[in-house]
Amino acid sequence: MIMFDMIGLDADDTLWHNETIFSLTQDKFKRLLSPYHSAEWIDQRLFATEMRNLEYFGYGIKGFTLSMIETAIELTEGRIQGSEIQMIIDFAREMRRTPVQLLEHVQEVVTTLAQHYPLMLITKGDLLDQESKIAQSGLADYFRHIEIMSAKTEPTYAALLAKYGIPSERFLMIGNSLKSDILPVVALGGHAVHIPYHITWSHEVIADTASRSQEYATLEHIGLLPALVEQMQHR
Amino acid sequence: MIMFDMIGLDADDTLWHNETIFSLTQDKFKRLLSPYHSAEWIDQRLFATEMRNLEYFGYGIKGFTLSMIETAIELTEGRIQGSEIQMIIDFAREMRRTPVQLLEHVQEVVTTLAQHYPLMLITKGDLLDQESKIAQSGLADYFRHIEIMSAKTEPTYAALLAKYGIPSERFLMIGNSLKSDILPVVALGGHAVHIPYHITWSHEVIADTASRSQEYATLEHIGLLPALVEQMQHR
Repeated sequence: MIMFDMIGLDADDTLWHNETIFSLTQDKFKRLLSPYHSAEWIDQRLFATEMRNLEYFGYGIKGFTLSMIETAIELTEGRIQGSEIQMIIDFAREMRRTPVQLLEHVQEVVTTLAQHYPLMLITKGDLLDQESKIAQSGLADYFRHIEIMSAKTEPTYAALLAKYGIPSERFLMIGNSLKSDILPVVALGGHAVHIPYHITWSHEVIADTASRSQEYATLEHIGLLPALVEQMQHR
Repeated sequence: MIMFDMIGLDADDTLWHNETIFSLTQDKFKRLLSPYHSAEWIDQRLFATEMRNLEYFGYGIKGFTLSMIETAIELTEGRIQGSEIQMIIDFAREMRRTPVQLLEHVQEVVTTLAQHYPLMLITKGDLLDQESKIAQSGLADYFRHIEIMSAKTEPTYAALLAKYGIPSERFLMIGNSLKSDILPVVALGGHAVHIPYHITWSHEVIADTASRSQEYATLEHIGLLPALVEQMQHR
């Protein structure tokens, strides 16, 4: 019988929609540059710029926006107009203004889990973006701890578990990203439940997951989580 | 006799230089726009843009960069070239690449204080900027806790003290900003030592500090801090 000392939940695309907002913005960006290039080429160049900028600008809306601006300059060979760059910055403000929309089942699942386990919200990204979404979500009070990290990797999870004195085998992590939520936790000897979102940002996509799929559970949606956690307890 | 359960230290412009880097970048920005406007007008418009963007983009290099880009578009009525906007984004990457430079006396003062008190680093700003500076500073190990906040206000300090179970009268905060480091802590009944930096960002400037100056100490430089803390203990 396993008992969890702490259940960690990812936020973006696990509790609320996020990638959709980036994806819709990227569609607007492609329409803006459509006189110059094909949608595929714009996607490809933007992704290359984002990857190059990750160490400088990190994750989140602001880094994404700076990458869109750079890509626009590159792809138009500097012919982009000031007014068009202004439109890109306006996209960023619209993204920040988009209301947080919880995924289906999230409200009741979080309420139920919080009655039985201490919960920790573990997110990655821009501090201001994340704090504002947590506040808006109405879920903050269900979480004993909220941790906003700049990266979710094996060492950062290890530091987090050490900080709260949680043995990895008594930790369960839930999230949509194999790379950021599942594999690092499993590598540390923790438990993990993968709940895919319908879009995955290319940067989070990893190859060859079949070989590791014995080490974590996968659910179709978060509504199935309380029953699975109950089952894990009595295994 | 006062005993402190925790000493909090601000980071930017208290432990290491920061405003200087923004100020030098702003000088480059003014040179870039000098064919269009006077330095004074550029400063004024940039500050107005930064204030308008604070709720969307927060503090830090990325928000500052987006505000520089918007100001450049506004002040040139859209005539700014793609290559010039690229230069502004390059300024941002240079800012992120600037090595952390500790203020004089910081290394020995932090080493000394850490022998006698639990220390907490309390910074505001962009998560990635701050984590990278803390790592580079070589000071991380002297701090029991590191807290990166999106704002330093009376409620956020109150939440922080509650989180660690620190009574405000047993908390001492050290920093360069009256607005962010000193007044909110004093208002909560805590102790504070103000150590001004030679430049203060306009947003952090507050009026009429004379009336409150009885409630906190002011030092010329951080080298004088250990002796003052010793004195406060035996008062």
